[in-house]
Amino acid sequence: MKVLIIGASGTIGAAVKEHLSERHDIITAGTQSGDIKLDITDPASIKRAFEELSPLDAVVMTLGKATFAPFSELEPAKLGESKHLLGIENKLMGQINVAQVARDHLTDGGSITLTTGILNEHPVPGSVSPSMVNGALDAFVKAAAMEMPRGIRINSVSPSVLRQSLGKYGPFFRGFKPVEAADVALAYSRSVESLVTGQVLKVW
Amino acid sequence: MKVLIIGASGTIGAAVKEHLSERHDIITAGTQSGDIKLDITDPASIKRAFEELSPLDAVVMTLGKATFAPFSELEPAKLGESKHLLGIENKLMGQINVAQVARDHLTDGGSITLTTGILNEHPVPGSVSPSMVNGALDAFVKAAAMEMPRGIRINSVSPSVLRQSLGKYGPFFRGFKPVEAADVALAYSRSVESLVTGQVLKVW
Repeated sequence: MKVLIIGASGTIGAAVKEHLSERHDIITAGTQSGDIKLDITDPASIKRAFEELSPLDAVVMTLGKATFAPFSELEPAKLGESKHLLGIENKLMGQINVAQVARDHLTDGGSITLTTGILNEHPVPGSVSPSMVNGALDAFVKAAAMEMPRGIRINSVSPSVLRQSLGKYGPFFRGFKPVEAADVALAYSRSVESLVTGQVLKVW
Repeated sequence: MKVLIIGASGTIGAAVKEHLSERHDIITAGTQSGDIKLDITDPASIKRAFEELSPLDAVVMTLGKATFAPFSELEPAKLGESKHLLGIENKLMGQINVAQVARDHLTDGGSITLTTGILNEHPVPGSVSPSMVNGALDAFVKAAAMEMPRGIRINSVSPSVLRQSLGKYGPFFRGFKPVEAADVALAYSRSVESLVTGQVLKVW
């Protein structure tokens, strides 16, 4: 299979690349690095990349930003000035836009894999916005799977905090058992190489 | 208790008003009708209403728009031109903004009740965008509840299709057992008059 990994420079993306490259052709994409430039917040750049790489059998997204902030600092605001905007424009609509391009461009029976995370089911202090975004993505995957054409499948992988990321995220995840990036990569493999669809593949 | 119902002119809102008015003082709000003007997409109008009505013990939201459309018609687009925008700005961020104003203005031990719906757990053809919004709201409620100050509680009510709304929504909900508006109103009563918090109160 020819598999596009968007966000392959991150901890999860690197583990997925290592795991899948044993059996498949991997193309990496990112805003700063990778084989091809792709910005998930720019629909035109997504379309350009998919047209250039066609035919493509699978796309895996291992990226997405959202704002961690105490709930007391999330003030009412118009969408354009809201602290929720980053999560909505980047992690949520960025991945949804990739899925909507992939739907029209992947080969028959192809697969789309998004990244969400444990925080919608197990929120932590300061996670209101990421929790909301993850809940949206898990529901999106379930609904979109039903209407995918040509046997295309779609799943999300929902990891807990990674042992490899404890330096950055550890203080947010007190009391959470960290998971190994290599174990998280297995869930992406299951989405790409098995036949599941409409599922949230939890790694925790 | 003094309870504000935003969207009381709708089918659910009217049933909630009827149920709660037996025991509480009800104030209704809406963009077109009600005791006070309030547009959930306009943070300034939310703040004005809460300041004018203070002290207020509970707010119940029984409104929120999102776009039903076949997944094939959900094209990749910038947020401002996306078909997901209505759901994100109205049902999602509208209710979140009300919750964020209410957090700072309700009396101690007050309650916030949002409306989501069955579609994130049981999607139907054309529900991708509303499903995504409902998933976001259910996760928001769970995360925000943990960080609410002064004993303020927050829950969502997630109804299936109402028997009273089958004329409008019936074609989307083939095979779903409709629920009675009066039974849905009971879930709002549980959120306002019991002590639950961080819950999705499902009526299906």
